[in-house]
Amino acid sequence: MNCIFQIAGLKDTGKTSVIESVLNKVKRNNEKIKIAVIKKSHHVVDPEGKDTWRFRKAGAHVVLFYGGDNVTSILIEENPLDFLDLLPSDAVLIEGFNQEEIGEKFIITSPEEVENLSSVISSKIEECYTIKRIVVDGDTREVRENSNLWLMYNLMKKLGVKEVKLKC
Amino acid sequence: MNCIFQIAGLKDTGKTSVIESVLNKVKRNNEKIKIAVIKKSHHVVDPEGKDTWRFRKAGAHVVLFYGGDNVTSILIEENPLDFLDLLPSDAVLIEGFNQEEIGEKFIITSPEEVENLSSVISSKIEECYTIKRIVVDGDTREVRENSNLWLMYNLMKKLGVKEVKLKC
Repeated sequence: MNCIFQIAGLKDTGKTSVIESVLNKVKRNNEKIKIAVIKKSHHVVDPEGKDTWRFRKAGAHVVLFYGGDNVTSILIEENPLDFLDLLPSDAVLIEGFNQEEIGEKFIITSPEEVENLSSVISSKIEECYTIKRIVVDGDTREVRENSNLWLMYNLMKKLGVKEVKLKC
Repeated sequence: MNCIFQIAGLKDTGKTSVIESVLNKVKRNNEKIKIAVIKKSHHVVDPEGKDTWRFRKAGAHVVLFYGGDNVTSILIEENPLDFLDLLPSDAVLIEGFNQEEIGEKFIITSPEEVENLSSVISSKIEECYTIKRIVVDGDTREVRENSNLWLMYNLMKKLGVKEVKLKC
């Protein structure tokens, strides 16, 4: 499962800079570690009238939008915290959910704390890196080999099951 | 696996309207059927300088953004067509990938064809609705019960495996 760290604090105290700094530090020390970021804001994700909005309103269960920057945006009407256990990463950094008690919470009060706080969190993330294995048709595989195996492992943990078979 | 339909055609011929109309028709006839939509455009998904962009640039493997409209945008640098087999839906409608041969392709040449074309595609989608089952710790479950089971089923089909166990 993911290690979860929440970065809380008032506006303009340096929350985004802490996350950026943690990502840079972890990447420098161990580039194998994968990190997901979840950010909440008041900004509207899918404005009324856009094609993606029209598809959602017409009843699409999920809309994927692929743009000129080669980035895919998967649009869903679900809380991102519902995906905490499914993300194929070693750790999740959360910003903007100040009211909620999720993971280990760090409160930043001024930009002067960015350097120190990001060092503390990045050290903790390095401890989250573990090897996970799964047995696929009798073969033991490392979960990190590909994101599908990782997702399968996380799903089984989330559902609390030990064995899954396809119905013949 | 998903049934895949591609709606191709020049600009302003009615591609988006076809998709919207298909979604409405299918919802009216069988509200259990789930449909995903994939749209490609030149519009930039995650503009330079935004917090989510900063996180991706700093090395985040996936960024989830939750906005004031209760919509989550999952941002990843992968082609959405890589997710075709993983979407927990019965069918996928694709717009904007005119150059690529994916699924059953329908070409629209004028807005007058919207009604007829959307009727044809929605009938085909209704045939895609099937019951899929999976055996979880010895219990047979319907995949449609929840999206995690659906994802598990799709992952096993995608990986081409019959049985997965957690390593004790």
